[in-house]
Amino acid sequence: MRDKLRKILENFAKGKISLEEAEEALALAPFEDLGFARLDHHRGVRKHFPEVIYGPGKTVEELTKICASFLEKKLPLLVTRVEPSRAEILLQKFPRLSYSPRARLIYFLPEKTEAKGFILIACGGTADLPVVEEARICAEAFGNKVEVIVDVGVAGVHRLVPELPKLRRARVIICVAGMEGALPSLLAGLVDTPIIAVPTSAGYGANFQGVAPLLTMLNSCAAGVAVVNIDNGFGAAYLASLINQLPERVFSRA
Amino acid sequence: MRDKLRKILENFAKGKISLEEAEEALALAPFEDLGFARLDHHRGVRKHFPEVIYGPGKTVEELTKICASFLEKKLPLLVTRVEPSRAEILLQKFPRLSYSPRARLIYFLPEKTEAKGFILIACGGTADLPVVEEARICAEAFGNKVEVIVDVGVAGVHRLVPELPKLRRARVIICVAGMEGALPSLLAGLVDTPIIAVPTSAGYGANFQGVAPLLTMLNSCAAGVAVVNIDNGFGAAYLASLINQLPERVFSRA
Amino acid sequence: MRDKLRKILENFAKGKISLEEAEEALALAPFEDLGFARLDHHRGVRKHFPEVIYGPGKTVEELTKICASFLEKKLPLLVTRVEPSRAEILLQKFPRLSYSPRARLIYFLPEKTEAKGFILIACGGTADLPVVEEARICAEAFGNKVEVIVDVGVAGVHRLVPELPKLRRARVIICVAGMEGALPSLLAGLVDTPIIAVPTSAGYGANFQGVAPLLTMLNSCAAGVAVVNIDNGFGAAYLASLINQLPERVFSRA
Amino acid sequence: MRDKLRKILENFAKGKISLEEAEEALALAPFEDLGFARLDHHRGVRKHFPEVIYGPGKTVEELTKICASFLEKKLPLLVTRVEPSRAEILLQKFPRLSYSPRARLIYFLPEKTEAKGFILIACGGTADLPVVEEARICAEAFGNKVEVIVDVGVAGVHRLVPELPKLRRARVIICVAGMEGALPSLLAGLVDTPIIAVPTSAGYGANFQGVAPLLTMLNSCAAGVAVVNIDNGFGAAYLASLINQLPERVFSRA
Amino acid sequence: MRDKLRKILENFAKGKISLEEAEEALALAPFEDLGFARLDHHRGVRKHFPEVIYGPGKTVEELTKICASFLEKKLPLLVTRVEPSRAEILLQKFPRLSYSPRARLIYFLPEKTEAKGFILIACGGTADLPVVEEARICAEAFGNKVEVIVDVGVAGVHRLVPELPKLRRARVIICVAGMEGALPSLLAGLVDTPIIAVPTSAGYGANFQGVAPLLTMLNSCAAGVAVVNIDNGFGAAYLASLINQLPERVFSRA
Amino acid sequence: MRDKLRKILENFAKGKISLEEAEEALALAPFEDLGFARLDHHRGVRKHFPEVIYGPGKTVEELTKICASFLEKKLPLLVTRVEPSRAEILLQKFPRLSYSPRARLIYFLPEKTEAKGFILIACGGTADLPVVEEARICAEAFGNKVEVIVDVGVAGVHRLVPELPKLRRARVIICVAGMEGALPSLLAGLVDTPIIAVPTSAGYGANFQGVAPLLTMLNSCAAGVAVVNIDNGFGAAYLASLINQLPERVFSRA
Amino acid sequence: MRDKLRKILENFAKGKISLEEAEEALALAPFEDLGFARLDHHRGVRKHFPEVIYGPGKTVEELTKICASFLEKKLPLLVTRVEPSRAEILLQKFPRLSYSPRARLIYFLPEKTEAKGFILIACGGTADLPVVEEARICAEAFGNKVEVIVDVGVAGVHRLVPELPKLRRARVIICVAGMEGALPSLLAGLVDTPIIAVPTSAGYGANFQGVAPLLTMLNSCAAGVAVVNIDNGFGAAYLASLINQLPERVFSRA
Amino acid sequence: MRDKLRKILENFAKGKISLEEAEEALALAPFEDLGFARLDHHRGVRKHFPEVIYGPGKTVEELTKICASFLEKKLPLLVTRVEPSRAEILLQKFPRLSYSPRARLIYFLPEKTEAKGFILIACGGTADLPVVEEARICAEAFGNKVEVIVDVGVAGVHRLVPELPKLRRARVIICVAGMEGALPSLLAGLVDTPIIAVPTSAGYGANFQGVAPLLTMLNSCAAGVAVVNIDNGFGAAYLASLINQLPERVFSRA
Repeated sequence: MRDKLRKILENFAKGKISLEEAEEALALAPFEDLGFARLDHHRGVRKHFPEVIYGPGKTVEELTKICASFLEKKLPLLVTRVEPSRAEILLQKFPRLSYSPRARLIYFLPEKTEAKGFILIACGGTADLPVVEEARICAEAFGNKVEVIVDVGVAGVHRLVPELPKLRRARVIICVAGMEGALPSLLAGLVDTPIIAVPTSAGYGANFQGVAPLLTMLNSCAAGVAVVNIDNGFGAAYLASLINQLPERVFSRA
Repeated sequence: MRDKLRKILENFAKGKISLEEAEEALALAPFEDLGFARLDHHRGVRKHFPEVIYGPGKTVEELTKICASFLEKKLPLLVTRVEPSRAEILLQKFPRLSYSPRARLIYFLPEKTEAKGFILIACGGTADLPVVEEARICAEAFGNKVEVIVDVGVAGVHRLVPELPKLRRARVIICVAGMEGALPSLLAGLVDTPIIAVPTSAGYGANFQGVAPLLTMLNSCAAGVAVVNIDNGFGAAYLASLINQLPERVFSRA
Repeated sequence: MRDKLRKILENFAKGKISLEEAEEALALAPFEDLGFARLDHHRGVRKHFPEVIYGPGKTVEELTKICASFLEKKLPLLVTRVEPSRAEILLQKFPRLSYSPRARLIYFLPEKTEAKGFILIACGGTADLPVVEEARICAEAFGNKVEVIVDVGVAGVHRLVPELPKLRRARVIICVAGMEGALPSLLAGLVDTPIIAVPTSAGYGANFQGVAPLLTMLNSCAAGVAVVNIDNGFGAAYLASLINQLPERVFSRA
Repeated sequence: MRDKLRKILENFAKGKISLEEAEEALALAPFEDLGFARLDHHRGVRKHFPEVIYGPGKTVEELTKICASFLEKKLPLLVTRVEPSRAEILLQKFPRLSYSPRARLIYFLPEKTEAKGFILIACGGTADLPVVEEARICAEAFGNKVEVIVDVGVAGVHRLVPELPKLRRARVIICVAGMEGALPSLLAGLVDTPIIAVPTSAGYGANFQGVAPLLTMLNSCAAGVAVVNIDNGFGAAYLASLINQLPERVFSRA
Repeated sequence: MRDKLRKILENFAKGKISLEEAEEALALAPFEDLGFARLDHHRGVRKHFPEVIYGPGKTVEELTKICASFLEKKLPLLVTRVEPSRAEILLQKFPRLSYSPRARLIYFLPEKTEAKGFILIACGGTADLPVVEEARICAEAFGNKVEVIVDVGVAGVHRLVPELPKLRRARVIICVAGMEGALPSLLAGLVDTPIIAVPTSAGYGANFQGVAPLLTMLNSCAAGVAVVNIDNGFGAAYLASLINQLPERVFSRA
Repeated sequence: MRDKLRKILENFAKGKISLEEAEEALALAPFEDLGFARLDHHRGVRKHFPEVIYGPGKTVEELTKICASFLEKKLPLLVTRVEPSRAEILLQKFPRLSYSPRARLIYFLPEKTEAKGFILIACGGTADLPVVEEARICAEAFGNKVEVIVDVGVAGVHRLVPELPKLRRARVIICVAGMEGALPSLLAGLVDTPIIAVPTSAGYGANFQGVAPLLTMLNSCAAGVAVVNIDNGFGAAYLASLINQLPERVFSRA
Repeated sequence: MRDKLRKILENFAKGKISLEEAEEALALAPFEDLGFARLDHHRGVRKHFPEVIYGPGKTVEELTKICASFLEKKLPLLVTRVEPSRAEILLQKFPRLSYSPRARLIYFLPEKTEAKGFILIACGGTADLPVVEEARICAEAFGNKVEVIVDVGVAGVHRLVPELPKLRRARVIICVAGMEGALPSLLAGLVDTPIIAVPTSAGYGANFQGVAPLLTMLNSCAAGVAVVNIDNGFGAAYLASLINQLPERVFSRA
Repeated sequence: MRDKLRKILENFAKGKISLEEAEEALALAPFEDLGFARLDHHRGVRKHFPEVIYGPGKTVEELTKICASFLEKKLPLLVTRVEPSRAEILLQKFPRLSYSPRARLIYFLPEKTEAKGFILIACGGTADLPVVEEARICAEAFGNKVEVIVDVGVAGVHRLVPELPKLRRARVIICVAGMEGALPSLLAGLVDTPIIAVPTSAGYGANFQGVAPLLTMLNSCAAGVAVVNIDNGFGAAYLASLINQLPERVFSRA
């Protein structure tokens, strides 16, 4: 792809094509037009992670075309928020795809990266597991080692103590919590590891589908915490991956 | 006062007054009409605490009349949310009154009750002190012993450890917290003492003047917590007092 | 369990184990690892009530394992918010379990405690009965006597009069109300008993699934009221239980 | 004015003016153009109450012109929400005007109507007095007899009993309440008089400047209540006036 | 019923029963205890309308008992918000009951009152018809004549003109509107009839299930409007009925 | 229709009918009374677009009558938000109708207008396609040429470059975006074409069913953007049509 | 400026500068670096309107530098939301600047454009005048003729009639309204002119600083309306200007 | 400090002190009791950054004591959100302190760390500068190199191009944005650097003091973004610092 880009610029420099033609050629190169969505295979150059497809609003036919396009090119693939009934149809067509019903994720990962350092995912209760699972699969898809600690809530702070060494060894923590969402505050007071907080919609009443833990996390009086959208396991995994791989990236540049 | 009530009923029973007259007499007895507010001195019979006056919306002239009426009868008095400038005028007129600028409370407490058991007030940071102070003075006015622990936030959970024995000895805990308001959850996981949580408006941005800690406390995944209005130190003290004095009340009945 | 704890500490004091080993031993002791959730049987030491399991988000398989683990140890068990279809499966497997379809509660209570004093649950209308039922079963599970008064709403204040003596005899009142949620204010003006207010999501339109009664209760101009989350009958029962049993606990200490 | 209208129509019918001219004449007739606001003196025909001017956003110069225009025509006048400093300037210019600092109302009422029936205004506490005052002056300006009952809150239901006969004699009740705003529900359960509820912004924290009593009143489980905007004493008085004068209006038609 | 009340009081006056017995007798008299709900047949004395039952949250069994109790006593009956499937069961059991699927109302009205004056119900679009229907049936049940005007929205103000005479003849207008809910403002500028505005949940997006028209109506710059809860046709009918019958009530007193 | 109007006025001028009769005739002329909804065929005079029927809340029977009435008169017809099951019934009855399941639109367009200039519809992702489709069909029904660009999100700004010439040639842009809704801001910084922004409810968590993109669009720091309701493709198309046809309208007047 | 751009591209085409140098030159050309803000004089090329400076958050020193930079280049200038005290300092330094205290706008307009067509600004009450004024000055600064109609509220619909011809002659209407904000709906039902609605923060209580009229406008059941931010007179003027000038732009292209 | 800790443990191991004494000694060691706040000097061990003091709610006297305590120990110090008037008093007492009026920060930084890598702070407009300044000073205080880019808003995307190389060289980006807050989405589509988004309260109307950009950022459709509280420059700097220093920390461990 990079060769193609260079060629266009050289042709322009040599006067073989006009500026307008060069501009057009450069702009159009990275797209493959499927009619309904411009898949960004080019993205692998600019961003070193696989393309992630947001499932809702796409018909099964559209998802089928997308999956076929990716599998043919042997590109890694993640499709988020796919209900079991739609997933079943896709998996029958493409046996190479995997599916997690809890995380509602379809994925195809051609090869595993050998990663150093690890991302730790901690959550307060079993009701948060769907988001934990989404974050875990995505983070592994992005080439990271992942460890998971379940059920270390703020209401049982003594359960947290034996996990402290592991929490401190992690390069970055994804902290998933519903209900009142106080776990990130607690962790941030105990470790000096960057924490990405994910509020979940687990709760009822004045939880308001995750607004309560969202506000808790934004107001954390313990520094070192930033927040992603409610139930956004994928987004947390993506950012955690950028952080976890930062050291190798920095030193490979040097 | 009780004598007066009994008399009315007896007169009615004896046929000295008609039912309508009896009804009217009973209904009117407990009021002293100041024109703008019916002071409820009678309340000492039904509720064993002094009358508490809500300051906002009353003119200095009205507060002056109210204070005079109480002091004349040697009744204990609490006036909440009085700004320093208005308090100064009242204190000059009534030197027996006291004033806390931090809690914005005017009070007159004729005598101290000898209480057993104590209420513990815990807060997360110095920004919560005005509410702590309001709760403390009110609770003492209602005849309770009070202990206060400042600055035991969720972000510094290790600071909490040496306070655990005291937290467990208290009959009831008032837990005051702003920011994300996670302290009540943390405490409720460590002790089995009733906890009254008071969210404060200390914070900024997505704190929304106390809405964030209010939601946190309502969603607490640790049981044993109930919540009063934002910055309502008085309300917490009142309820804590009912709970703290319950054992003596129960056994004095028996 | 207490013996085990003491043993670890003594071993450390005697130098049989290192500080690190002692720390680890103490931290790990109370957990039984089921993989997906750390059940806190140890909690019976620290909190004198049975473990309560939050049902939503757990698969039937997970609930089955949890129930089996509890029943095997003859521990009392409460599982909240279980839909009838899932409850049926569990009850077929474990005939010793009971189920309330109205409160959506699964429970197993090995023995009844002989309690003194009682908790009174009052509600405004039949639409609030599911929450009343959840509170009642939980409170009884926690070893309390409970009395229930239905349909004493603020719009029919005359219906309340004959209930006043009972309301005053209770050690603590759980007041359940939907719609505008004014009942706790009314009660708090008539009795000097601690009141735990539970807003319910019964209502429509500007009720906002319980937000309206929640705000009403938080703003109650009658002191002596604190609030738990919308529809949180369990939380109210837990806190009411701590208060109801306070007198005996205080005097057993003395 | 009516003569003028009839004249235009007759002229048109007689062919003296064209349809376009007739239309234009009819449309323009009722306005007096002050440049910045079209005063609707004509309104006295269509609506039998004086014009009410909304004070905020108008400069003192504009208010001066408006007052002059009304006084010259001897029309009754009400200007709402005028701060004392601005009111002082106007009153110096127009000594015939009156001003209530509590209600922030400027008014001029040329003559008093002889009204039958009365409007009763009830409020829960002294903090609601500014709204009570606005409602009272407006209602009297609209030609009604008004009675006021202060401090009959839901938390002191026994204080309400002696007022019941008066509450039942009123043709319509304006019920003003801040804090949790439960008074209208309570009244509606006791009387069968139409109730106009006015939430006030008196309160703090989760009161949200009157949102809490607004929601309470909208969700009232007692029928017979409708609500106007927060602190809208004028609006309540206007509607109450329409209701209070309905009987005479109905029977004068007959 | 009134005889029964008078008897108790006389017995007490004569000394036949003690004060405590009198009090108890008076308080308990009006209730018929069905176990789950205290039906208030007594209400016919205090409020001259039939009892209205709020349907949601009641089981079919409970509704059956309530209907049987009312029909047996030949009392008029309204049950609101009953889904067709539940209504069908009740109608099979009690053929005398009627049901409106659009308004989801079950009703039994033994006789029609001969009313003077009428309530006018106006709405902006067909999407508001369920609420219009609920208001209409309820208002007729309460003994009023009702007229209905459909589809006179603010966006088609010219359609409103031919209806003005009827709008002005009505004693009270119920104005039902969803979407932006501006119809009451428009009407209040054209007539001097009391207007009860009912916001409906008809709309989408930033309508927020009726919050948009609710706010519009509360902020109406045209006086003479008060608001009830979203979709609350019953509440509007009840209040409109009180107003519509006020003239006769006032003059029958005189 | 215009002839009819003129006739009435002339008759009145000639004295053939009275003013009252003229008024009535004028007011009633444009309506065709179907009992439940006054169809505004007259609207073609005042507004040069076909009548658009809002589907929700109408029964299939009512929609059938409306469709029949329109088709009989050969009037163009749009019915919005009709679910597939209801659409199927209508299409079987009226084979001339068309239906778009994605946009949930039923439409009948007798002839195509020859338009100059075009409306461009741009959206950020495939999840926004239902709204894009509703806007496209409506805009074409209103007689406009339409071009659509899909999947030019703010997160892939480089994809936007090759579309800039087309974006600049459009007379007006409808910009449809869910998630964070930043696309209109981006476009407004690149082109000087009027932009109508349509937030969609595509998203989850703190998207709040379209509130997040709605706020983003309202706060756009790039000028040239105005916003319609969430998911309101129809409304955007209507306004865009007014703008797109403005030049021809202006110059046809000249 | 255009010459400069063309030169860079030609130099690159001729090989005088490298691609990197060309890219850099193109990117940097339009900026003049003042250290704290990059003024976009280049914008005159891409957008045919003067630069508009957002006043809040800039110090007087920064505003002084910006004004000096613009005046020196004889560029038209608008600075929004400048308080009188800050404006006074700037006007003393730059006597060529003008200032509107009502609109809080500083402006310098070197020459007046000869415009065809006009923008009509309509508002409901005098409280909306600051926003009307901001819109008017901005629209004139952008080279448009503007007409203003004040005080044509929804509550006085008869006042609107004589203005209809003017409303219909305008190319675009800016409709400014506070309180319940229903005016745009009313207008859109009467004219087929594009309407840009501006909610204002004029109002109180449940107006929520303009949220009520914002929602009203977004939910308008009359098509042809789009909305800008609360009090955003500038944004409305900008978009109105794009629409008003569209006909000339379209036909100058042709 | 570490020596002190080890000593306590050894003493306990040797039996010199009891377990209770050891526990107490360990718990109390790190605190210095100032009466109103427990300063956590110990924190330097657990967290490698200086203590940060939250200014609001502390009196000048309390801040004076805190500053004296820190300066005496030569500890670095940051006090956030101190108004100029209070800052002036402190700076007169402690000339070694510095103050930024824009960021409202008091700080004392004994020595500068030699950092590798850098944090880039980007903002959309000058109105965001107070938050940028807070973030910059804090990040430098925590030992980081910082670069700042001002005024690269989403509405001027072409201004962003020349900054891309610098944006890509940064280890972590703090992106500060008010208004609609779309800048983080735009950046995340162009670079693969972790982005910490800080919404600011700069804006008006439907910005809701920063809620609009907060929601925009949480809903960013471009991955790689997490969010901190509105205006929380300090929190962003703290987390950015953890990330920026991660590579050196990781490799110093290895």
